[in-house]
Amino acid sequence: MRKVDPEKVEAKRRQILDAAIDCFARQGFHGTSTASICAAAGMSPGNLFHYFPTKASIIEAIAQDEQLATAEIFEKWSGAEDALTAIEEIVVEWMRLASEPTYARISIEVGAEASRNPDIKALFLVNDQRVKGRMITLIERGIRQGAIDAALAPDLLASWLIALAEGAVGRVVFESKFDLSAHEPVFRRIVRRTLQK
Amino acid sequence: MRKVDPEKVEAKRRQILDAAIDCFARQGFHGTSTASICAAAGMSPGNLFHYFPTKASIIEAIAQDEQLATAEIFEKWSGAEDALTAIEEIVVEWMRLASEPTYARISIEVGAEASRNPDIKALFLVNDQRVKGRMITLIERGIRQGAIDAALAPDLLASWLIALAEGAVGRVVFESKFDLSAHEPVFRRIVRRTLQK
Repeated sequence: MRKVDPEKVEAKRRQILDAAIDCFARQGFHGTSTASICAAAGMSPGNLFHYFPTKASIIEAIAQDEQLATAEIFEKWSGAEDALTAIEEIVVEWMRLASEPTYARISIEVGAEASRNPDIKALFLVNDQRVKGRMITLIERGIRQGAIDAALAPDLLASWLIALAEGAVGRVVFESKFDLSAHEPVFRRIVRRTLQK
Repeated sequence: MRKVDPEKVEAKRRQILDAAIDCFARQGFHGTSTASICAAAGMSPGNLFHYFPTKASIIEAIAQDEQLATAEIFEKWSGAEDALTAIEEIVVEWMRLASEPTYARISIEVGAEASRNPDIKALFLVNDQRVKGRMITLIERGIRQGAIDAALAPDLLASWLIALAEGAVGRVVFESKFDLSAHEPVFRRIVRRTLQK
């Protein structure tokens, strides 16, 4: 029996996902055939099928990778003493992620697909609810610490922090020469001034 | 010679655009054939061709309608005495527009298409630059009036007001029972606190 090397499996999986992301960003989910993903990844359909049985399973893996990336940012900061600072730093790191052009274009694509494909929407909503729940927990902690204004509902504030991060993706894709470091003081100000008493 | 009734022409044009918007929101631009637009609009391909020679020309008309809707909001408020109030009210009306579910879904679709189709991107960028330019003019007026903080560059502030409005579209599509009136105090606060000294 042949042994399976988990590192090689992961490298192959990554190779397919990178090729697929590139195809989707250029042609959209619907405009991309599995044949063109195979060509971009330099492998046969049979080989691709071994890792991802359908195009939908590739999209799911990409959505899950996005989920993992945001989850990591929250985990890094959730333990911070000062909840308001944690929220500010999470938003900054999220913007840094969003300012990566391929991530930004794939986010728009996943969003458009999720708005009409129930399976992708379900995946998207699980992630969305998780991120929102984590943001609400941090806002509530900030309120208890006396740093965040209790006058506004935490779930409404969480919605607008997410809207801001999602809206950033559009700026990255459509503003030529988007420079994150120039923008950073503005979104730090938005977060702090909106949340503070 | 047959007379052309401009009202009838406009009604027919509207009928096609509404049918196309419905198809695009459900199946995406690429997943929608002109045949399915004809079926939804209840007209023959020859008749549709008379109004819109290509699918791309329908997408262009939809993007132009979006452009017109935001331009109207700016025109309504640009004459207001107090620039900060004008900006706040423009953002509120923009959110009201974005909270219309069909508008929101088509916005996501236009954004995704614009990120990979150069013709749609060019159209999108003309609108984007116009909106941003108008926002910058208002911010500069607010600075001269002493109501808006001169410490931050007007073009950076304009980017984030646009990001907020564009991010709102995602919340409308993905948050079940999105209630605009509940959210209104939050985005009024974001705009005012971010811009004020």
